Amino acid sequence: MSNQPKRVFNFNPGPAILPLPVLKQAQEEMLDYKGTGMSVMEISHRSKEFEAVIQTAEADLRTLMNIPANYKVLFLQGGASLQFTMLPMNLRPAGASADYIVTGSWGKKAFDEAAKLGTTRAAANMKATNFDHLPIQAELDLDPKAAYLHFTSNETIHGVEYFTEPVPPAGVPLVCDASSDFISHPIDVSKYALIYAGAQKNAGPAGVVIPIIRDDLLEKVPANLPVMLDYKTMAADGSLYNTPPCWSVYIVGLVLKWIKEIGGLPEIARRNQAKAGLVYKAIDESGGFYRGHAKTDSRSVMNVTFRLPNEQLEEQFASEAKKRDLIGLKGHRSVGGMRASMYNAFPIEGVESLVEFMKEFQQNNG
Amino acid sequence: MSNQPKRVFNFNPGPAILPLPVLKQAQEEMLDYKGTGMSVMEISHRSKEFEAVIQTAEADLRTLMNIPANYKVLFLQGGASLQFTMLPMNLRPAGASADYIVTGSWGKKAFDEAAKLGTTRAAANMKATNFDHLPIQAELDLDPKAAYLHFTSNETIHGVEYFTEPVPPAGVPLVCDASSDFISHPIDVSKYALIYAGAQKNAGPAGVVIPIIRDDLLEKVPANLPVMLDYKTMAADGSLYNTPPCWSVYIVGLVLKWIKEIGGLPEIARRNQAKAGLVYKAIDESGGFYRGHAKTDSRSVMNVTFRLPNEQLEEQFASEAKKRDLIGLKGHRSVGGMRASMYNAFPIEGVESLVEFMKEFQQNNG
Repeated sequence: MSNQPKRVFNFNPGPAILPLPVLKQAQEEMLDYKGTGMSVMEISHRSKEFEAVIQTAEADLRTLMNIPANYKVLFLQGGASLQFTMLPMNLRPAGASADYIVTGSWGKKAFDEAAKLGTTRAAANMKATNFDHLPIQAELDLDPKAAYLHFTSNETIHGVEYFTEPVPPAGVPLVCDASSDFISHPIDVSKYALIYAGAQKNAGPAGVVIPIIRDDLLEKVPANLPVMLDYKTMAADGSLYNTPPCWSVYIVGLVLKWIKEIGGLPEIARRNQAKAGLVYKAIDESGGFYRGHAKTDSRSVMNVTFRLPNEQLEEQFASEAKKRDLIGLKGHRSVGGMRASMYNAFPIEGVESLVEFMKEFQQNNG
Repeated sequence: MSNQPKRVFNFNPGPAILPLPVLKQAQEEMLDYKGTGMSVMEISHRSKEFEAVIQTAEADLRTLMNIPANYKVLFLQGGASLQFTMLPMNLRPAGASADYIVTGSWGKKAFDEAAKLGTTRAAANMKATNFDHLPIQAELDLDPKAAYLHFTSNETIHGVEYFTEPVPPAGVPLVCDASSDFISHPIDVSKYALIYAGAQKNAGPAGVVIPIIRDDLLEKVPANLPVMLDYKTMAADGSLYNTPPCWSVYIVGLVLKWIKEIGGLPEIARRNQAKAGLVYKAIDESGGFYRGHAKTDSRSVMNVTFRLPNEQLEEQFASEAKKRDLIGLKGHRSVGGMRASMYNAFPIEGVESLVEFMKEFQQNNG
C-alpha cells in the first residue's frame, strides 16, 4: 500500500461511489476494529462493539434527517426489492387496496410486486412518455380509502425526482421508496408513514435497506407473518432478530458520520444542486447536441439522463469518457444514451471534468 | 497501518473469524479493486469485474464441493432465517406437508417458520434432553408423501452435528440448513435436493446466504411468488435479479480461494477434526470438571459446548479467558456454560492456547 492507489470519477448508478475518508477508515480498521483484535466482520452482532455500530448509525441518521421520536429506524436485508413485498404484506390489510404513483422502472416494480399480493391501483402511470416527467397533484387519481399511497422519490433509470411530496387523501399513509435520493437533501419526515431506501446509492454499500416507519403503522401489521418479513418483529428486536448485514451497516455508519462532519443534509443538498446544475447547464447550452430525457421541472439532482444525436455518438462518448477515467456514464437500456449519477460522495471536480469533456466532445463531433 | 495490528483468538459462533490472508487482501484492494480505481463496493453489479467476482466464487465453490452440473448455486440476502420462509413457499405445494428433524434451536426456527405457512410435521424433536444428541435413523417418524425432509446439519447453539445424512423415504427431497458446518468437510451433494448456508460461520461475513438447489426442484416453484422470494427467478438471473450483497460475495470468494489453496475440503476437515479433538480430549480427561453438553456420538466439530461445575466458575472462566485474548467463549443462554466455535479459519494455535488455559484453570479451581 505504499503507492498512491488509482481512483477514478465514478458515475455508477449504484452500487456507487463512497466517500474516500470512509474507505480509508474501513481499510485502516480492517484487521483490528477499535482494539478488539478482530475485523468488524468477525465480531458478534450481539457484542457491545457491534451494538455501538448499529446504534450510532441510527442516532446519526436520526440527527441528520431530524427523524421524530415516534419513528423506528430499521437496517434490513433484501434491498428495496424485498420492501416491495414487505410493504403490502405488512401495511395493506386483507381486502384493502393500495395506490401507487408509477413514475419509472422502480415505481413499476413496486406496483407489480404489490399487485401479486392484493388489490393495487395506479394513481398515475407516466409510461406514455417513457417516464420523462412527474404527474402534478391534480393529475393523481387517488383512492380516499387506500391502505397507503406509494411513490418513488427519485427514478434512478429515468432521472426524474420529486422535491415536493405528493399529498395523499386525509388519513391515507404516504409511503416512499427513497432509494436513490435518500439523505441527499432535507425532507420533512413527519409527512411520511414509511420511507425506505437501499443503501447503495447515497448511504453505503449494497446489502442493507433502511426502512423508517411510524410507530402507529406497526400496530397494523398482521399477526403470524414470516418473521423475516415482519416490520414489527424487526422493530422490536432493533434489527437484531437475526444476524444483520454487519459490514454494510458499519459502512453506512461511517458515511453518516462523514455527512455530519461536512455539514449535514443542507450542505449535501447545496453540493448536489451545484453538481447537477453544471451538467444540466452544459446540456441546455449545447444547442440541442445534448438532449435531456427528463422534462425541466422533473429533473433529478441525482441522475442526469441525456441523449446525443445518435447511438453511435453515444457509444463513442462513453468510450472516450472512460479513457479520461469518467466511469459508469452509459445509460440504462430502457432510456438509452447517457446517465451521470452524482450521489452525495461524488466530488465536484469529477463533474467539472465531465462538463469539460462534454464541450470538447461536441466541438469534435457536433 | 505501520504498527502490527492486534489480533485475538476469536471463538465467536458467527459472525466469526475470517482467514487473515483474506482480510489483508480486502484491505489491500479497498481503494482500488484490480486497477478499476474503485472499491469492490463501488463497482456496478452489472460490470464485468463484479460478474467475475460472483462467477469465480461460484466456480470455486463448485470445485470445492464437487457440485454436480444439475445444481444451481445462488447468493442471496436475508440469511438462513429467510430461507426458512422461502423453502416452504417454493417447495411445498398447497395442501402438502413437510417433515422437519428438530435437533436444536435452528431446526426449531426452521420448523416454526414453515408451520406458519402450511402443514409441517416433526419427524423427530430432541427437545426432551435439551438437544444433546441426534436421533438415529430408526427413530425418525417419516412421511413417505412429504414435500421434503429438512434437517440442520450442525446446531450451532447445542453443538450437535450430523456426519451421515438422515435418509428420506424414496422420492422425498432432502433439504439441509448447513449454515454452521458448510464447507467444513466434504459431503456428497448429490444426496441433497437443496442445501443452504448463511456465510457468516465458515464461508465469509454476514449478509449473504448460499442456497444450492437441484434443477428439478425449480420446476416445482409456484408461479407468481414475490420475486425476491422466488428461487426460480434468482436462479434464472444468476443471483443478479437485483443488486446482490456485493461485498459479502467478494469476501466469500476470497475465503473459497483460501480454502482451495490450503488443500480443499479434505484438508479443512482434517484441521477441523484435529482442533475439535483437542478440546474434546481436554473435556474427557478433566475427570468431570468440564462436562460436554453433546453426547459423544453427536459431538460437533464446529461448536464444542461444555459446562463447568457451577455458573460462577463459568463466568470466571470466560472472564479469565478473555484476558488471554481467547474471545467469544461464553455459551448461548439456552445451553449455558461455554462454547468454543472453531470454524475453518480458526487456527490450531488458538485451540492449543485454549486447552492449556483449561488445564490451568482446572488446576487453580478444581
